[in-house]
Amino acid sequence: MNIPRIQKVIDNMHAHGLNQILVSAPASVFYLTGVWCEPFERMLALHVRDDGALTLYANKMFALQGLTDVPMVEYEDTDDCVAVLAADVQPGRLGIDKTWPSHFTLRLMERRPDVRPVLGSAPVDDARMIKDAEEIELMRVSSRKNALDCARIGEALREGVTEKEIQALYNQIAEELGASGPSFTPLICFGPNGAEPHHDSDGTRLKPGDTVIMDVGLIWKHYCSDMTRTVQFGAVSDEQKRVYDIVAAANRAGIAACRPGVKMKDIDRAARRVIEDAGYGPYFTHRTGHGIGLDEHEFPDCSAVSEVVTRPGMIFSIEPGIYLPGKFGVRVEDLVVITEDGCEPLT
Amino acid sequence: MNIPRIQKVIDNMHAHGLNQILVSAPASVFYLTGVWCEPFERMLALHVRDDGALTLYANKMFALQGLTDVPMVEYEDTDDCVAVLAADVQPGRLGIDKTWPSHFTLRLMERRPDVRPVLGSAPVDDARMIKDAEEIELMRVSSRKNALDCARIGEALREGVTEKEIQALYNQIAEELGASGPSFTPLICFGPNGAEPHHDSDGTRLKPGDTVIMDVGLIWKHYCSDMTRTVQFGAVSDEQKRVYDIVAAANRAGIAACRPGVKMKDIDRAARRVIEDAGYGPYFTHRTGHGIGLDEHEFPDCSAVSEVVTRPGMIFSIEPGIYLPGKFGVRVEDLVVITEDGCEPLT
Repeated sequence: MNIPRIQKVIDNMHAHGLNQILVSAPASVFYLTGVWCEPFERMLALHVRDDGALTLYANKMFALQGLTDVPMVEYEDTDDCVAVLAADVQPGRLGIDKTWPSHFTLRLMERRPDVRPVLGSAPVDDARMIKDAEEIELMRVSSRKNALDCARIGEALREGVTEKEIQALYNQIAEELGASGPSFTPLICFGPNGAEPHHDSDGTRLKPGDTVIMDVGLIWKHYCSDMTRTVQFGAVSDEQKRVYDIVAAANRAGIAACRPGVKMKDIDRAARRVIEDAGYGPYFTHRTGHGIGLDEHEFPDCSAVSEVVTRPGMIFSIEPGIYLPGKFGVRVEDLVVITEDGCEPLT
Repeated sequence: MNIPRIQKVIDNMHAHGLNQILVSAPASVFYLTGVWCEPFERMLALHVRDDGALTLYANKMFALQGLTDVPMVEYEDTDDCVAVLAADVQPGRLGIDKTWPSHFTLRLMERRPDVRPVLGSAPVDDARMIKDAEEIELMRVSSRKNALDCARIGEALREGVTEKEIQALYNQIAEELGASGPSFTPLICFGPNGAEPHHDSDGTRLKPGDTVIMDVGLIWKHYCSDMTRTVQFGAVSDEQKRVYDIVAAANRAGIAACRPGVKMKDIDRAARRVIEDAGYGPYFTHRTGHGIGLDEHEFPDCSAVSEVVTRPGMIFSIEPGIYLPGKFGVRVEDLVVITEDGCEPLT
C-alpha cells in the first residue's frame, strides 16, 4: 500500500466530513494498493476508514492474494458479496465511489438501513488530481510516445486508405512502442465524419480535400496520453483553412491561460472566446478539456461550469473544436501539466 | 421503439411492483429504442412508465436526435443532467438499472427525497432473457462465425507463436468475417497461464506439451458469441488427457441437463458433479455459465445458487473448467438455446 497517498486520502476524507469510503474504480484501487484489477461485473471494493484501516474485498477469481499488503477479504461467485461487505461497514455516512454500479449501493442500503450512502469519490479524486513527480514523468513518456505514433500515422495518410486501417496502424505502432494498448479506441475521421465528435472509424476512404481528425492516446505503465491533430489532405478551401486557424488559436489561448490559481471555467472561457468571437460558438459543442492520468478521463473537467482552481501537478487536456455538420470538423488537443508558475505542454 | 418488447417490459414491471424504471445499460436501451449508444461517463437513461410513456435522456453530443421515435430530452455538458431527470420522475419507488453509476443514483436521491430508488433491472432483463426468433437466428450466425474463427486460430498454433499473436489473428479474422469486433478480449492461454481463469494474453510462446485455452467471441449485428476450446499442443501427459476428458464430460453433462423447466442450479450441479466425482471439485472455481445476447454476460447466471427456471428462448453458456495452478487449465464452453423440448447447442 502507498502510505503517503493513503494519508492524503484520509486528510481529504476529513475535509469532506467522511470517516469511511468505498473505493471501487480500478485506477483508484491501483493508486492506493498497487494492484490493478478489472472486476467486470463482479465486485471490487476497497474500504478505507479514517483510522487508517483498509480492507480490499475481491473475488477469489481475481487472484490478488499476495499481490498487495492491504488486508483482503475474498469471496466466491456463490457468495453474496454485498452481504460480506455489509457485515463490516460502519453505521452512518459511507462515501461511495462514483462509478460503482448502482446495484451494489442499493443492495447495501437494503441490508444496512443504518448506513447512509453519499457520493464519496472526492477524497481519492482530489488526491489523484495532483500528480507527483513520478506520475508526471510517466505522463511525459506516455505523451512523447503518443506524439511519435500520431506523427507516424499522419505520414501514412494517402488517397484511398480507410479510417479503420489508420486506426489499426496506430494500435500496431503503440504496441511496438511498448504501450500496453491504446487509452481509448483511436478516433480517425475523414471529411464529414469529423463533424461527429464521437464518430466510430469505419471503411470510409480518404479523398483529396478531406480534413482529417486524429484523436489518439496510449497507455504507458498505466498512465494515459491523449492528443488530437487535424490535418488537411490535398487542396484546402478557404473555410477549412479559416476554421483550422481559429481552432488552433483557441487551443493556444487555452494553454496560455493555464497557470496555478485559475478557475477551470476561466480556461474554458479563454479558449471558447476565440471561437465565439470568430462566429463559430454554436459549433463548439463540448467542454474544453478533461483531467487525465491513470484514466483517460479524470476529475476535473475543464468546462464552462467548473469552479475547480488549478494547482501545480494537475494534468488536463485543452481540446477546442469546431464541427460543421455534413462538411468537416477540426479539433486540436494537447495535454498540459500545471507548474509552479505556468504550465508545460506534454505534446 | 419496439412496442411488443415495451409491452413485455411493462408487464414485468407490474410483476415486480414497479410503475417506473430507469433503463441505462446500452444494450437494454437498444433493445427498446433501436439506438445503441455508449455514453462513457455521461448520462444515458430511458425512463419507462407503466402507462407506456417513454423518455430518453441523452447528451446532445450523442447525436441521437432523429434515430429513434422515442421522445427525447437532450442536455449539454454544461447542464446538470441529473437535475433535468429529477424534475420529471414520479414520487415513490423508482427502479434503477443495475449498472447505472452510483453517482447518478445518489445525486437523484439528494434532489428527490420523495423518490425511493430500488434495484429495477429485472423487468428488462427478464424480457431480454427470452430471445425471439430473430434474435436466436442472429445468435446462431454469430456463433457460427465464432466457431469458424476459433478453428482457424487453432490451425495457426505452432511452436514459438505468442498468445498476443493468436489474439491479434482472432481479431483480424473476426473483422474479415464481418463482425463489428470481438465480444471480449480473446483469452489465449498457453501452458500454466491457462490455470489463471483471467490471464491477460501476453508474449508467452507456445511450447510442445502445452495445453492451450482459446476463449473467444465476436459481435454480429449487436449479438455476442462466446466459446472455449482447449487443445493439447504436442506430447500429452496422462494428467492432461485425464483432466481434458473430465471437463469435456462435464460440458456434455451440463448440456444434457438443458431443457425447459429446469433450475439453473441443477444444470450447474450436473456439470459440477462430474468434476467433483473425479476428485477435481476444488479446481473448478467458477460458475458453470452465464446468459448471453446483446451483452456477452447477461442475466441469468448458471451457478450453484441460481433458482432461475429455464424457458424456451433462453441462451446461455455451459463452460466447466479445471485449473491446476502452475501446471495448466482446461475449459470447454458452448452456448445453448433452450427449445420447446430440450436444447440446441449453437457451437
